[in-house]
Amino acid sequence: MELLKKRILSDARVKSGNIIKVDGFINHQIDIALMNEIGKEFKTLFEGEHITKVITIEASGIAVACLTALHLDVPVVFAKKSESKNIDGEVYKTTVTSFTRGRDYTVILEKRHLSADDRILIVDDILATGKAQQGLLDISGQAGAEVVGIGVVIEKGFQGGGDQLRDAGYNVKSLAIIDSMEEGAIVFRD
Amino acid sequence: MELLKKRILSDARVKSGNIIKVDGFINHQIDIALMNEIGKEFKTLFEGEHITKVITIEASGIAVACLTALHLDVPVVFAKKSESKNIDGEVYKTTVTSFTRGRDYTVILEKRHLSADDRILIVDDILATGKAQQGLLDISGQAGAEVVGIGVVIEKGFQGGGDQLRDAGYNVKSLAIIDSMEEGAIVFRD
Repeated sequence: MELLKKRILSDARVKSGNIIKVDGFINHQIDIALMNEIGKEFKTLFEGEHITKVITIEASGIAVACLTALHLDVPVVFAKKSESKNIDGEVYKTTVTSFTRGRDYTVILEKRHLSADDRILIVDDILATGKAQQGLLDISGQAGAEVVGIGVVIEKGFQGGGDQLRDAGYNVKSLAIIDSMEEGAIVFRD
Repeated sequence: MELLKKRILSDARVKSGNIIKVDGFINHQIDIALMNEIGKEFKTLFEGEHITKVITIEASGIAVACLTALHLDVPVVFAKKSESKNIDGEVYKTTVTSFTRGRDYTVILEKRHLSADDRILIVDDILATGKAQQGLLDISGQAGAEVVGIGVVIEKGFQGGGDQLRDAGYNVKSLAIIDSMEEGAIVFRD
């Protein structure tokens, strides 16, 4: 997606430790006009798949999920990172290792919101090692739902998570794949 | 907002401890068509205020913020609940007591995303005691930004947080105000 790649080149910042900061337009401050175009692009990429729900993990995936679901005209369900007084039903549960946070955490999704009748699009802002996507695949598997696609705004291709998912047979579409960012020079995959 | 009130009456569930569950359409599964109407309603209520940013706290406020910002055509900034490797700049910081989670937590917002030039709309899904809104008011005050409105999807009027904010002079607009829900019978304020 050219609009996104241009924005990454102008506004993303590369930090040591293979971190890319897109907090100015994707995942802390959100350029909602750009996110709306991202949602339209995912609609175009996945609209033949008869998707019934868009799922993600809180927090930064929610914006991507909402704008994508708006154009696909289906509900969003987001997995939650911690239990609160406000969870009362039976839940699907899985463990995710966060690259950014450097620790494991449990994510839950109430069973009433995902079933074997669902055809799922998993979306997120960043795909690095793919742990968040693996967690959502695990939850979708517990529900018996079919995952018909995985949509990612920015894939850090050099960390391998996206290609592992493709090798496992998933239809992964990333709007920008970064194959290297050594010394701060971002190189996209064609 | 009649569409919202009807949906609350049909799909919300009241639990002991003054908890209302709207996880089927607002804050776990999200009915994106309804959320889009909510965003349009906030645009109508606040569009004369020359808003420059919509702010909220992760996670369940993000959907409200995104669909509102889409119609106001301004960016979203969401305060984050924990520090990660991906925060590197100077931050505004405040402490919020969560009614739902039963504990205090720190929220942060990077300084580069909020300034004294900003005219802020604070939004969230639920207003109970108003602690989340107070936290965002604190952060806005640290930035020197002007808070021109507070938009809430569902206000639990009987917990008093909304009226405290109104008494303090804030322009609080709630799309549905619940004045009581004793024995599960939801009564809206006119």
